[in-house]
Amino acid sequence: MFETAELGHTLDKRSYEARVPNLRVALVNAQYDLREADFPVVILIDGNDRPACNGLLKGMHEWMDGRFIHLVALGRPTDEELQRPRFWRYWRQLPGAGHIGAFIDGWAQTLIRERVLGEADEQEEARRLGHIRDLEQALVQDGALLLKFWCHLPKDELRKRIKKTRKNPDSAWQLAGEGDFELYERYDEAMPVAERIVRETSTGQAPWQIIESTDRRYLGMTMAETLLSALQKRLDQASATTATASPAAAAPPSLDGLTILDSIDLTQSLDKDDYKRELEQQQGRLAHLARAAHDKGITSVLVFEGWDAAGKGGVIRRVCAPLDPRQFRIVPVAAPTDEELAHHYLWRFWKHLPKAGKILIFDRSWYGRVLVERVEGFASEAEWGRAYAEIRDFEEQLCASGIVLQKYWLHISPEEQLARFQAREHTPYKKHKITEDDYRNREKWPQYAHAVHEMFTRTSTEEAPWHLIAANDKRHGRVDVLRNYCRALERRL
Amino acid sequence: MFETAELGHTLDKRSYEARVPNLRVALVNAQYDLREADFPVVILIDGNDRPACNGLLKGMHEWMDGRFIHLVALGRPTDEELQRPRFWRYWRQLPGAGHIGAFIDGWAQTLIRERVLGEADEQEEARRLGHIRDLEQALVQDGALLLKFWCHLPKDELRKRIKKTRKNPDSAWQLAGEGDFELYERYDEAMPVAERIVRETSTGQAPWQIIESTDRRYLGMTMAETLLSALQKRLDQASATTATASPAAAAPPSLDGLTILDSIDLTQSLDKDDYKRELEQQQGRLAHLARAAHDKGITSVLVFEGWDAAGKGGVIRRVCAPLDPRQFRIVPVAAPTDEELAHHYLWRFWKHLPKAGKILIFDRSWYGRVLVERVEGFASEAEWGRAYAEIRDFEEQLCASGIVLQKYWLHISPEEQLARFQAREHTPYKKHKITEDDYRNREKWPQYAHAVHEMFTRTSTEEAPWHLIAANDKRHGRVDVLRNYCRALERRL
Repeated sequence: MFETAELGHTLDKRSYEARVPNLRVALVNAQYDLREADFPVVILIDGNDRPACNGLLKGMHEWMDGRFIHLVALGRPTDEELQRPRFWRYWRQLPGAGHIGAFIDGWAQTLIRERVLGEADEQEEARRLGHIRDLEQALVQDGALLLKFWCHLPKDELRKRIKKTRKNPDSAWQLAGEGDFELYERYDEAMPVAERIVRETSTGQAPWQIIESTDRRYLGMTMAETLLSALQKRLDQASATTATASPAAAAPPSLDGLTILDSIDLTQSLDKDDYKRELEQQQGRLAHLARAAHDKGITSVLVFEGWDAAGKGGVIRRVCAPLDPRQFRIVPVAAPTDEELAHHYLWRFWKHLPKAGKILIFDRSWYGRVLVERVEGFASEAEWGRAYAEIRDFEEQLCASGIVLQKYWLHISPEEQLARFQAREHTPYKKHKITEDDYRNREKWPQYAHAVHEMFTRTSTEEAPWHLIAANDKRHGRVDVLRNYCRALERRL
Repeated sequence: MFETAELGHTLDKRSYEARVPNLRVALVNAQYDLREADFPVVILIDGNDRPACNGLLKGMHEWMDGRFIHLVALGRPTDEELQRPRFWRYWRQLPGAGHIGAFIDGWAQTLIRERVLGEADEQEEARRLGHIRDLEQALVQDGALLLKFWCHLPKDELRKRIKKTRKNPDSAWQLAGEGDFELYERYDEAMPVAERIVRETSTGQAPWQIIESTDRRYLGMTMAETLLSALQKRLDQASATTATASPAAAAPPSLDGLTILDSIDLTQSLDKDDYKRELEQQQGRLAHLARAAHDKGITSVLVFEGWDAAGKGGVIRRVCAPLDPRQFRIVPVAAPTDEELAHHYLWRFWKHLPKAGKILIFDRSWYGRVLVERVEGFASEAEWGRAYAEIRDFEEQLCASGIVLQKYWLHISPEEQLARFQAREHTPYKKHKITEDDYRNREKWPQYAHAVHEMFTRTSTEEAPWHLIAANDKRHGRVDVLRNYCRALERRL
């Protein structure tokens, strides 16, 4: 794979200098157009030649407008990063639409280093490769222009350079990335690993551009021209999403109208006394378990979805009541801000992920993409169609990092919903909870039920199953969720 | 001061329960109205009675809609926080308009603890009190509703409680805030310190509400009713800023039209050869100094302001050229996002503050408030009028945390500006830099000059002086900035 970058490519000074002026004008203009565009540019610059990578970054700053290039050079994870799923550090740095984010020492390079240094095993490599592919696919399908440059220096040349660089204290720092010296010195071990990981992450939509870095002019010009032509091509395309997304195959509605929701026994109920006793018992149990989880740094993420008026708020209040207020946080999911809109739709959920030991409660969640946004047409078919896989990968990463992820669907019957709507209109502190929209949404009950059904089918996994809660009887629903969450915590502890 | 909270206040169960239903409805409704309002609510809950503080937080969650209460319980600073000015952790957690942020263990409590435990000395206390007052004033004047509750437990009662709580492992965790045990046990030392700091931070606009916590019903009801009435009163006021801000006294324009800018000798220049030699020399010097600063964890913040076409971009490029791209970041200041607009205007600058050892470069900055926003009327007189003091406090905190802060005003003459505008129209990659607005802004030159003059007068301090750069000759301007920044780094190193 790297052989094509060991041919001794060069570009003579005259040809180089002849190309620069036009290239520079074109790059600045393209970058200017980008600022008005509705997609971000994500650039990965890695390789076995760290000084060359730095050189490319410097070149970008020189030839383009450095103010709109956000360079992300992540060192060892900070303690805030260590307490969250691994890719959180990348997500929090992703550029929004109109911006360029350049990652050095990105997700692939980190994996290579960890493999060579023995910090990650084969299994971890396989898992990580999956997450990398999913992340890149999510970005590209969301419209991002993703470019990956690999600076390759042939072995002999590399040895020479290291020797020379080390002698000169003024440039030695350039090699001082995390573990870089060690990597370079174990060339024979490192290259096969690098080759494999570069190959595995060279997908059709985001291939690595492997460039020989022996001659800096050749490297710089190749990178700049590749970037320019990709950027221009992308800008010429009418719109981000139509260009890259393939239509998803939606599951057909079931012929008999039955959905998974019909399997829920809505007659389950609890009488007042049983409820009081059970509630107290489960809350006491949760208080202990949550404290133990906190002490062990076990994070929980609870997701609540369900019909309007299914009682999400009431359940959440009962779950939180026995908890230390410092331990939990409720995130009500409302309309995204403009900064959130400029990113992949999962970005804002990544952003909320808490430190270790906390309990994060989503009142509505990322599932809005495949529920309300799907049914109301706020997301295109391609967008919600690919969301299932994106969500699965997101949740896999949460679980892999040790988070207890619980997903609850609160189910009620249409009749019960109507009764609750009407009751709300007569309760002073619930009046604001009811609008005409709520009544209008009822008409789409079958479409929603179908969307819920497909959501279950495609996102209820062994690690992150959906829990269907019969909530026609509020008391039963509340105790059921509490018991369920307690059980999950017990299993983990 | 605390004596008034040692009277043995109580509220009997019947009175309490009679008040709850109406109070709850009113709170939920007020909170609902808040969500549409253009101001945030910041609540501080502290005191010598940690379990009572937790109780208040729990009560808020029970009686109000917990989904819109963002509880901030900061423990020991994380490593990301330790690398930034102390108040960064508070700024990053401030709620936006329409939201409630409840801080436990906030800025005052932390200072009390550090004083009692000997981690902060008298001088630090004085400094910190200044920052606290400035922060609170900035929030209140920006329209925030700031409420501070102090839960006070008399000495004998406190001893009893601690003894009892410690025996019960189920509640012992409630006392387990940072250093809390120690604080409680050193009551006689701690109380005078607490009293002093509470007194010093009880300003007219944000007084502490000191409430006796012996009787939980009394405490909870007092807090809830105080919160409700403050919230309702604030919601009734027409608009955030008019309600709280007093008009600022603007400095009159100088009678003879002279400003500080007239003191700059714009004839200073460098010929090409001198420039080449000087540039190389200063860039080499900067490369060394920046590396040394990086190794010592010294952060720089550079601010560039100046007339349109004064050459900010060109200067910034020359400053960045010798730097490791991983070390610096340029922040071009453009229109704020909606999330930024929902916060105090300094929030977005706090947000950008980098980790230790980095160089952050602002291309335009928080000074927009007292320049373009002032002259164009985007900020009210009260807003830009109080900005000088807010900026001074912000910059003081940067400097106090060890940041090298450099502020440059690039000055050119109106004639030179016109010539550059015209030249830009004929340079292919600079065309997009020139619009009709630029020509229009020229007409307000005297107003801008006056604003710049006042900005110097009020924000050029010994620690964070403004540097006036003669930039009619670009070469002179670039070298001057480089030399200046190098000198600042040298002094620090």
